[in-house]
Amino acid sequence: MASLPNQMSALQAAREIAAGRLTSEALVRGCLARIAERDAAVQAWAFVDPEAAIEQARACDRGPRRGLLHGVPVGVKDVIDTADQPTAYNSPIYAGHRPRADAACVAAVRRAGAVILGKTETTEFANNHPARTRNPHNLSHTPGGSSSGSAAAVADHMVPVAFGTQTGGSTIRPAAFCGIVGYKPTFNLINRAGLKIVAESLDTIGTHGRSVEDAALLACAASGRTMPDFARYKGTPRVGLYRTPHWDKTDEATRTLLASVAERLRAAGWAVVDADLPPQAVAIYDANTTIMQYEEAFSLGYEYDHHRERLSEDLRTRIERGRATTREHYERAIDVVLEVGGMFHDAFRSVDVLLTPSAPGEAPFGLTTTGNALFNRNWTTLGLPCVTIPCGQGQKGLPLGVQFVGPYRGDTAVLLAADAARKILSR
Amino acid sequence: MASLPNQMSALQAAREIAAGRLTSEALVRGCLARIAERDAAVQAWAFVDPEAAIEQARACDRGPRRGLLHGVPVGVKDVIDTADQPTAYNSPIYAGHRPRADAACVAAVRRAGAVILGKTETTEFANNHPARTRNPHNLSHTPGGSSSGSAAAVADHMVPVAFGTQTGGSTIRPAAFCGIVGYKPTFNLINRAGLKIVAESLDTIGTHGRSVEDAALLACAASGRTMPDFARYKGTPRVGLYRTPHWDKTDEATRTLLASVAERLRAAGWAVVDADLPPQAVAIYDANTTIMQYEEAFSLGYEYDHHRERLSEDLRTRIERGRATTREHYERAIDVVLEVGGMFHDAFRSVDVLLTPSAPGEAPFGLTTTGNALFNRNWTTLGLPCVTIPCGQGQKGLPLGVQFVGPYRGDTAVLLAADAARKILSR
Repeated sequence: MASLPNQMSALQAAREIAAGRLTSEALVRGCLARIAERDAAVQAWAFVDPEAAIEQARACDRGPRRGLLHGVPVGVKDVIDTADQPTAYNSPIYAGHRPRADAACVAAVRRAGAVILGKTETTEFANNHPARTRNPHNLSHTPGGSSSGSAAAVADHMVPVAFGTQTGGSTIRPAAFCGIVGYKPTFNLINRAGLKIVAESLDTIGTHGRSVEDAALLACAASGRTMPDFARYKGTPRVGLYRTPHWDKTDEATRTLLASVAERLRAAGWAVVDADLPPQAVAIYDANTTIMQYEEAFSLGYEYDHHRERLSEDLRTRIERGRATTREHYERAIDVVLEVGGMFHDAFRSVDVLLTPSAPGEAPFGLTTTGNALFNRNWTTLGLPCVTIPCGQGQKGLPLGVQFVGPYRGDTAVLLAADAARKILSR
Repeated sequence: MASLPNQMSALQAAREIAAGRLTSEALVRGCLARIAERDAAVQAWAFVDPEAAIEQARACDRGPRRGLLHGVPVGVKDVIDTADQPTAYNSPIYAGHRPRADAACVAAVRRAGAVILGKTETTEFANNHPARTRNPHNLSHTPGGSSSGSAAAVADHMVPVAFGTQTGGSTIRPAAFCGIVGYKPTFNLINRAGLKIVAESLDTIGTHGRSVEDAALLACAASGRTMPDFARYKGTPRVGLYRTPHWDKTDEATRTLLASVAERLRAAGWAVVDADLPPQAVAIYDANTTIMQYEEAFSLGYEYDHHRERLSEDLRTRIERGRATTREHYERAIDVVLEVGGMFHDAFRSVDVLLTPSAPGEAPFGLTTTGNALFNRNWTTLGLPCVTIPCGQGQKGLPLGVQFVGPYRGDTAVLLAADAARKILSR
């Protein structure tokens, strides 16, 4: 058992609280103390009201057990609505905005007993313009984005689990950069009511935790899914090592890592084969760009038309590109998604999961970029479930991750495989 | 040309304005006069600010032409956000609620020059609890729902076009009951950012007009799609007459109407055949109920948890049923959607469009129900494009409609077929 409450996993904390060995208040105070100690440096939080968080925790301690997350603090990316806390999408247009309702996922985890600890920093409208958040492993490096604050807060033991979102690579990439687990479920698994929409064909609510079990726990509490039976899993999944058409964009540490992970899984009795897809599958990357820009030109249309000068130049440019895109070009991108989706459907006949980089390498230096989503955008566009697990280090000593991808709606399989792989790789 | 501006089609009005023969102000004043004359009886509008509408119209008259809808008034169902007008979802929980942004579809049609005339009445959160709106053809009858106000306002010449939404049968059914055209596009065709979500796998923004062209015009302005070339269309589509597994729920007038429409289309040279689907296709209806209830238990979770006493009993019951539904049951319903979707995909190999009832019959008496969505829920669940055109009358002299359904993303084909059919049937 971890010595300090804020270092506990969500699962462990929930068990300790259920057993009466820990109060939610002590846990929340532990997290708040860590935030007080570290957040001036890390800047993971857009909003925390310590007194209100403690009051939520006390209500849990006073009341009957409500569910899977009873008394457990959760961070919520600041593009997801909360009725009791401001929700500003990291945009001055929405400074101090207080939604009228909790988002569906927030309401669901509150019903499961969660304490909503605060709102985590996001890039502007979950796009590219960076948050102020820093990588807790090295403050001079980006934590990745757009779920920057969620990944950094979980990595830095400020909160055990947090919600992120992913439209390109916004859950998996920051998780990999911060050395934690990120889970982007199958499209639509966690209800999106109350999410500030960027691109509705792509936006997916995901989770961050320091273990696969924790990332799964938050998603299950938010969606009503049954927790996979991690403890009893003894499978040896068939793995396809998928280098993607962008293998040449990975750094050497990542290429070495993937080869080593494949070898160690083989040594544990897993069948690992090379997964090759038709070269036409490369079209999915441009399709993601087209769909995202076209749809966000609509979803952020009001903000552009009425508050253009308060958008970042980067976002203005993206919206302008979306407006310059024809509907016909957008619909051809949807054709590509359907076609490439069929190719991956076929690929999953011979393997259970794909093994692939989570990012091109470790977190880049500086805070002017959140890194490259090249190893995520394809999966988001296809709606396939992805889990990144921390594994190894890059040249600068920052965390690396490897990503497991499952077939459509194969969330349980990919979570179980990722957790089993992590156990093998941590031996 | 219609004698009064409020009786013009949107297309005609846009042309007259573009030609300098009509001002937007005169058109909007005509619509406002009709509302002043009739809305105490019909009660189609949740909010209209005449001065603000006239101000929008004057701005159009002063400025350069902005797009397809320059100067044309549009009604917006009150589950779709408007930044300059309250948006209350017909729920006391949201009385006076003023969203921070326009929904994507509202922002898009404003860019195309539309005047947002006001907010049209909806059932509570676009569910079953009726709006106060009455059927303009007979005030003792329901206009249908949930897009009650949009259908009634368009039918009663208060506005040429309006946005509705459909999760079960909420755009097509009220259009049929009110004797107008309703268009529910392929799932996701009109961007949903800023829509109050009921069931995100189902919710579809649709349009009401008094012609197929007008319903298409509003959808094209909202989505960036190209207008189908109605004037030049000379096709003779292959039609499958699909009686559905619920043919015995239709009234005699509807059965007679469908037979007569099939005969008249045949006489015009169209190939009309009976479309039969495997009996398992009937499972789609229960799947719709399961998906809707399960998802709205999440999307309206906050409202139920915090304002239960301000929800209608009907909606409380639905949410409670959704909460009593297991995730496994919900996921089996998704399996059904995928399976039945495949059956219809196959059916569209031999026909271009399906011809099917829009509703079981004419609008029921009374305002305690909005009628039955049995002939709509299946199409919404499958995401297929539907157009209802007014055609004939029921036993009580109220309008009937027939519905054309197209394959996934076959919106242009179904709009063209419906418009051509209407021309044939009005000879």
